[in-house]
Amino acid sequence: MSLPPFTVTILGTSSATPAYGRFPSAQVVQFHQRLFLIDCGEAAQFQLRKYHFSIQKIEKIFISHLHGDHFFGFFGLIGSMQLQGRKRELLVYAPPELEHIFKTIYAASDASVTFPLKFIHLKSHSKELIYEDDAINVYSFPMNHRVPCFGFVFQEKPFLRKIRKEKVENLSLLPIHYDVLRKGEDVVLEDGRILKNSEYTIPSPPPGVFVHCSDTFYTPLYYKNFFDSPDLLYHEATFSSAEAKRAELTFHSTANQAAQAARDCGAKKLIIGHFSARYKELTPLLEEARAVFRESILAEEGLTVNIRDGFPVPVPVR
Amino acid sequence: MSLPPFTVTILGTSSATPAYGRFPSAQVVQFHQRLFLIDCGEAAQFQLRKYHFSIQKIEKIFISHLHGDHFFGFFGLIGSMQLQGRKRELLVYAPPELEHIFKTIYAASDASVTFPLKFIHLKSHSKELIYEDDAINVYSFPMNHRVPCFGFVFQEKPFLRKIRKEKVENLSLLPIHYDVLRKGEDVVLEDGRILKNSEYTIPSPPPGVFVHCSDTFYTPLYYKNFFDSPDLLYHEATFSSAEAKRAELTFHSTANQAAQAARDCGAKKLIIGHFSARYKELTPLLEEARAVFRESILAEEGLTVNIRDGFPVPVPVR
Repeated sequence: MSLPPFTVTILGTSSATPAYGRFPSAQVVQFHQRLFLIDCGEAAQFQLRKYHFSIQKIEKIFISHLHGDHFFGFFGLIGSMQLQGRKRELLVYAPPELEHIFKTIYAASDASVTFPLKFIHLKSHSKELIYEDDAINVYSFPMNHRVPCFGFVFQEKPFLRKIRKEKVENLSLLPIHYDVLRKGEDVVLEDGRILKNSEYTIPSPPPGVFVHCSDTFYTPLYYKNFFDSPDLLYHEATFSSAEAKRAELTFHSTANQAAQAARDCGAKKLIIGHFSARYKELTPLLEEARAVFRESILAEEGLTVNIRDGFPVPVPVR
Repeated sequence: MSLPPFTVTILGTSSATPAYGRFPSAQVVQFHQRLFLIDCGEAAQFQLRKYHFSIQKIEKIFISHLHGDHFFGFFGLIGSMQLQGRKRELLVYAPPELEHIFKTIYAASDASVTFPLKFIHLKSHSKELIYEDDAINVYSFPMNHRVPCFGFVFQEKPFLRKIRKEKVENLSLLPIHYDVLRKGEDVVLEDGRILKNSEYTIPSPPPGVFVHCSDTFYTPLYYKNFFDSPDLLYHEATFSSAEAKRAELTFHSTANQAAQAARDCGAKKLIIGHFSARYKELTPLLEEARAVFRESILAEEGLTVNIRDGFPVPVPVR
């Protein structure tokens, strides 16, 4: 069964000081035909263009926290959306102060935004369903950083079961019967016959779950409170274990801790990112993570990963 | 006579919406051994790195006005200066609101700047000397844009005259005599002899003047109020004459008007920039400018121009 796309593309892998051609944090989740942006570091709009994403197709922006490397690209992106004639609504899930900063900046520039731009203030201290529709639930949950910081869970809803055509083609079923079967229930026909769901359908592949954990101090088993067994976990790994003390002081994680987090929560795959400018070569960080959690990969500008199976895929031209 | 460098390097040539690999406005003036930054559009810190400028060597930043394409890179640049351990003072010449915006953003991120960062508020409606030292005067002057906007004049002070060694080598002059000669005055010796300056020195090359005119509506002869005969004029040329109406409505200039401005003020050379995203190919804008003012060139990312003679030079690795 061919599933609609559910991928994440890395736009930036750098921590606060960009170095070695790495850009600050930003990721695009392509969910079916829709685009979500997670974090929006400086130059995110240039990275979006480079990897062929249309900025006008972005439906929602999720900002994890208000350190500059996670949101300094927001203002320019909104400006470009406006100048390119955006009409479509944009929802921004972010700590409350972002709206205030945005308004302060736009007041100074005597500019206005004429498309519907809505800020949803993140402030909950527990897991919270911040968006839901027929196909997805998005949750926020609190991280442990120097300022209020949020992780995000993108949880695809289960797909409908697939009907075995060869079993139903001579039954003259009504549309309602198909709907009932797809939902996994048995059909009771008018003449009393029962069509057992398990006989007439096959299961669809399981839905995907992506979890995004930006800047955070690592606490063993902490994530168990908020999610379980994601298909793909993105977790920051600013430092190597040699800098564990510095990681603790700055409320960041080591590559080893990111891998422990993946193991703790039963993730199937892990991407590590948000690398300190002190590391030119990242292989040691990857090796450190893989020693704890084998299915680890390095984030890299332009890398697109299929969330459901954790394998890299080419970025399509959109 | 070998003069100290006085160059401008273009980091961005785009108007509000970046397109075709062009970046928003930012330019580096290398004045002798010092760096000044004029405007700081998004991703300026990446462009600075690309063209081998050390961000810690930047002494002063001049922000022409508070439209996003001229300052959205400011916050990230300051953040990187801080994280890379800057100790040196930074002076920021900008409209007053920039300081307020900066403080609003830094309050939200619970970050602090530990190097001396001083904002100098630009608000004068006439020409104003905003910085002076032994080697340079910098002036601001008002432009005509939708928000308060400032042009800048970088006026090198005259070099000392050069002493003709062959004329003085047998005279046993004192250091004070050399100073008097270098300043262009005659020397009266103790025995009453007079050393005519014109006989004992040769003139140094004339100092350079660079004028930066960012976003503005064009008014004939307007610049005559503020400067005269700069060696190099940078002037925005957002549109071609075919869009003269749009230029007027948006308080911008056409390439033709930029060239008229250069002619009006007796500039020796002109660089045009700040190109609208509607122009992929810029040659027509250059041709339009050259039809009015022959010594026009196009701004281009990475282009470095010698201010004193207006010729492109390679960017040195610093």
